[in-house]
Amino acid sequence: MDRRTAERLDLDDPLAGLRAEFDIAGDRPVYMDGNSLGRPSRATVEAVHRAAADWAGRLVGGWQEWIDLPSVVGDRLGRLVGAGPGQVLVCDSTTVNLYKLAAAALDARPGRDVIVGAATDFPTDRYVLEGLAAATGRRLVLLDAPDDDPAALEDRLAATVGDQTALVSLSHVHYRSGARLDGRSVTELVQGRGALMLWDLAHSAGSVPVDLDGWGADLAVGCSYKYLNGGPGAPGWLYVRRGLHGRLRQPIWGWFGRADQFAMGEGYVPAAGIGSHLTGTPPVIGLRAVDAGLELLERAGVAALWAKSQRLTALLAEMVEEDLVPLGARLASPSDPDRRGAHLTVGHTGAWTWCRALVDGDLVIPDFRAPDRIRLGPAPLYTRFTDCFDAVRMMAEVLAAGPAPAGGPARVT
Amino acid sequence: MDRRTAERLDLDDPLAGLRAEFDIAGDRPVYMDGNSLGRPSRATVEAVHRAAADWAGRLVGGWQEWIDLPSVVGDRLGRLVGAGPGQVLVCDSTTVNLYKLAAAALDARPGRDVIVGAATDFPTDRYVLEGLAAATGRRLVLLDAPDDDPAALEDRLAATVGDQTALVSLSHVHYRSGARLDGRSVTELVQGRGALMLWDLAHSAGSVPVDLDGWGADLAVGCSYKYLNGGPGAPGWLYVRRGLHGRLRQPIWGWFGRADQFAMGEGYVPAAGIGSHLTGTPPVIGLRAVDAGLELLERAGVAALWAKSQRLTALLAEMVEEDLVPLGARLASPSDPDRRGAHLTVGHTGAWTWCRALVDGDLVIPDFRAPDRIRLGPAPLYTRFTDCFDAVRMMAEVLAAGPAPAGGPARVT
Repeated sequence: MDRRTAERLDLDDPLAGLRAEFDIAGDRPVYMDGNSLGRPSRATVEAVHRAAADWAGRLVGGWQEWIDLPSVVGDRLGRLVGAGPGQVLVCDSTTVNLYKLAAAALDARPGRDVIVGAATDFPTDRYVLEGLAAATGRRLVLLDAPDDDPAALEDRLAATVGDQTALVSLSHVHYRSGARLDGRSVTELVQGRGALMLWDLAHSAGSVPVDLDGWGADLAVGCSYKYLNGGPGAPGWLYVRRGLHGRLRQPIWGWFGRADQFAMGEGYVPAAGIGSHLTGTPPVIGLRAVDAGLELLERAGVAALWAKSQRLTALLAEMVEEDLVPLGARLASPSDPDRRGAHLTVGHTGAWTWCRALVDGDLVIPDFRAPDRIRLGPAPLYTRFTDCFDAVRMMAEVLAAGPAPAGGPARVT
Repeated sequence: MDRRTAERLDLDDPLAGLRAEFDIAGDRPVYMDGNSLGRPSRATVEAVHRAAADWAGRLVGGWQEWIDLPSVVGDRLGRLVGAGPGQVLVCDSTTVNLYKLAAAALDARPGRDVIVGAATDFPTDRYVLEGLAAATGRRLVLLDAPDDDPAALEDRLAATVGDQTALVSLSHVHYRSGARLDGRSVTELVQGRGALMLWDLAHSAGSVPVDLDGWGADLAVGCSYKYLNGGPGAPGWLYVRRGLHGRLRQPIWGWFGRADQFAMGEGYVPAAGIGSHLTGTPPVIGLRAVDAGLELLERAGVAALWAKSQRLTALLAEMVEEDLVPLGARLASPSDPDRRGAHLTVGHTGAWTWCRALVDGDLVIPDFRAPDRIRLGPAPLYTRFTDCFDAVRMMAEVLAAGPAPAGGPARVT
């Protein structure tokens, strides 16, 4: 790989023009963390400003429109993940949504006493399932497979899910390795054994093809601050398949989930449709930011985003092998591009000090992932091929220049 | 009451200057709904703009600071409600916080099978308790007393709470009538019978004196979009008394509530202190807006806010009796000022059409509350005595001018 090739890929990139929608100050540091906290587009910043002005101008009257934002923005998000209208809400946090849907699923499978997750899955996913297992007297089985071997995880799953399994919850794209599961076949397997399937799409939505309706998926959650560029702590989202509406009861009975909410009547009666999965008052400014982020992704189109993501990660993978492996690093993601999402991870015993040197030197902003990984998330909306090229070259220079001793934990998300 | 008196009250108002911190376009309509959705100060709008710029500029590195916002802003909010540091978090929605704390309280009182609430309490409070009663096999007792008679409610409570009561959850200031319970004596009563007391302070924080530590309160929740001026759907908050830290386990086990979060380790271990009541990623832009709102309330001081609130509601109550009662309306709030919060409610069979005429005529923006009430919430930071005077005069003119037939429900919050 040489820089000319990367430059040529930028010239041929049909999405190259979208970088101008973002206010990016200079070429350094190279931001390789769009899958942890995406950048705001100019339109998103304007949407936040407009939302504040809207609040000031319309005051309480604004609720006539705002009240529908969780489902209006949800439907828009749904189009990015293959969900027809009326099945997605933008609300609460990913963690709270995961809790609500997992609890609802367990409630719908009363005779089954096993919950299945993955031992290497994102912490909140494991912890929420652990809490629900403790609360409902169920057993949590965490599938044990290397995080960069999705086929091994699928094999474990097939050997584990049985007629006592109530719920399986897995990340479609692994937060650390980027390993990608087969959404359709996993869904079929789990449903074939009578369990409900809950997908965490935090690292999928906005970068990787997802076809929830096509997969026949039951439930899904995700965040909006990564590839969706909704901002730090932007609201999460959830999907409940239409066929399950009215058949699942989530545990947090709030006024926004009640039928005929403003009658403020006696007793909780769940709203029809997806609405019963709302809880409290939705965050209007956050929803406006998410909406603006979605608009830009819609303009790009998932197919084009995915095509570019594959080329970006292919370039990164090639350079990791060429430039970093000889220096003692390793590709800690699947080598098969068909089993990867839109980010890559590099392993090295000195990952923490290496990462600090890259950040402190204003060279590259990647993401450290405990205990020994550097994660590279080249968001396809605004990352150039030359950015990826330069990032790996600087990573190699830093690694070659000095020792990278093993080090302590970080406070990056 | 005459307008000159109201003008004199404005001249003597030590908080009058704070109105200039808000961008208020003209004198009409009079905004009497600050207890439903508070106005943004200029500083709050600027804080929202700065938060967006901060995201764009610092990207993922911003988390080094943002991660502490729930507790930093929580401590600041705590000073408004008599809570020492380390006991308040700004996070999730009021509904989700109510769920978390109520569930934690029930978990801590396993042998007791009764939950006590109030039949006229805000819907989300009743529904959340109902859901938890159903989930844990407990009985929910909703105290039945007129919403404008707090002494009657307290009597019912004393007659009801017993050694089978696990949890009592009540609003300190009633959302509709403005009736105010005695925080200290209710807390003592409930604790004296071995139950835990959970306060909903949505209509108290930022207007009415609250002394959580002084009351010896166990648990409290509130929102930040009313008197705290945090914006539509701004994050909620929660309080857990220090003596209960480490002894209550909330049900949503997310990564933000785990000890040593970024080690992303195996198994859920609750964080020490108040931190275990966090769940998912906190909403940074929303937290910045709340923080700016709190700064202005701090400048005013709770004592001054409360003193002005009492004078504003006294003026309103006097004018309701003089101008509206002769037209068939009634004061639907306690007549004793010592049993009221910072808002008042007027009852009339034609409240809905009356309210629409006031709003549609750009005269007054009050709040309709089903089935037959108009609620007036004169936020003390930016509401003038002449605003209150003019509002009631216009209400009287509209009511006198034409019939106000009974009508259907609204979609206002």
